[in-house]
Amino acid sequence: MSALRILGIDPGLRVTGFGVIEKHGSQLVYVASGCIKSNDKQSLPERIATLFAGISEVIATYRPDQSAVEKVFVNVNPQSTLLLGQARGAALSALVHGGLPVAEYTALQVKQAVVGHGKAAKDQVQAMVVRLLGLAGSPTADAADALACAICHAHGGQGLGALATAGYRIRGGRLIG
Amino acid sequence: MSALRILGIDPGLRVTGFGVIEKHGSQLVYVASGCIKSNDKQSLPERIATLFAGISEVIATYRPDQSAVEKVFVNVNPQSTLLLGQARGAALSALVHGGLPVAEYTALQVKQAVVGHGKAAKDQVQAMVVRLLGLAGSPTADAADALACAICHAHGGQGLGALATAGYRIRGGRLIG
Repeated sequence: MSALRILGIDPGLRVTGFGVIEKHGSQLVYVASGCIKSNDKQSLPERIATLFAGISEVIATYRPDQSAVEKVFVNVNPQSTLLLGQARGAALSALVHGGLPVAEYTALQVKQAVVGHGKAAKDQVQAMVVRLLGLAGSPTADAADALACAICHAHGGQGLGALATAGYRIRGGRLIG
Repeated sequence: MSALRILGIDPGLRVTGFGVIEKHGSQLVYVASGCIKSNDKQSLPERIATLFAGISEVIATYRPDQSAVEKVFVNVNPQSTLLLGQARGAALSALVHGGLPVAEYTALQVKQAVVGHGKAAKDQVQAMVVRLLGLAGSPTADAADALACAICHAHGGQGLGALATAGYRIRGGRLIG
């Protein structure tokens, strides 16, 4: 059975975490992780461009087969919700533009898959990511969340087959005059 | 003086309007307009892919020099705000990926530029777009809003020179391990 390479993304306008793992049968192998930061002194289009280009570069470098993105939640501050939404829209655009099927998971699903219950604290998720992937050091919080999302996809609550079928590749938009 | 071709975008998840005009000195000439619709029975990544591909197709077809996008507002429904944000993030991604400088305008700025005051009703904006561009028929509401945004950019409250300077072209994202 050939390895399946999964890219996990934890979207954010200031920092977007990414993590790449490989699934060999039941074994998970760490490939890479990190984060893409945008400069809050720049305009929104510039920041969106940085996120889009950064994720595109990760795809070009690590050539994943599938992707998994954390669902984001509405913030108490509506303006923050709008900014987070735009960052997530840029992340999804880069993934579909890169030809990747995209699966979406809630933070609850990710925690259940990685720690075993949905009420896990952030540092518990981080510690389990280190243990599950046999890492020598601890990744940053954003990179750990992205790796956790990739692990969740690899463990496939819905089964990997179903997720792969639900995945999407880009096709021409319908333009109506 | 050579013509400046401007793409206006009115972003939305269900319907994104687009409008292309040319500025020849002080004269504005209509080129094209329409809308990109996404199917609400599809997953969010599929809908984002449709919007991204649709705008990319408009750029490839009409080869604009600059773009202008309406700023969106937070909705009373936070979930709608999040969805609208993601649609706008996809639109901005497609524009910067297409190498276009992006200027942003509020609905107030667009109305002031097209109708002359910020309290104009939607049908007044539509009527002024028809008159300013000498159209034979009336475009749909979303296409009219996109054309109005392009007209606002052409009239350049801040001056076209300043806008062009503020514009942005895509460059590599900084990846931090």
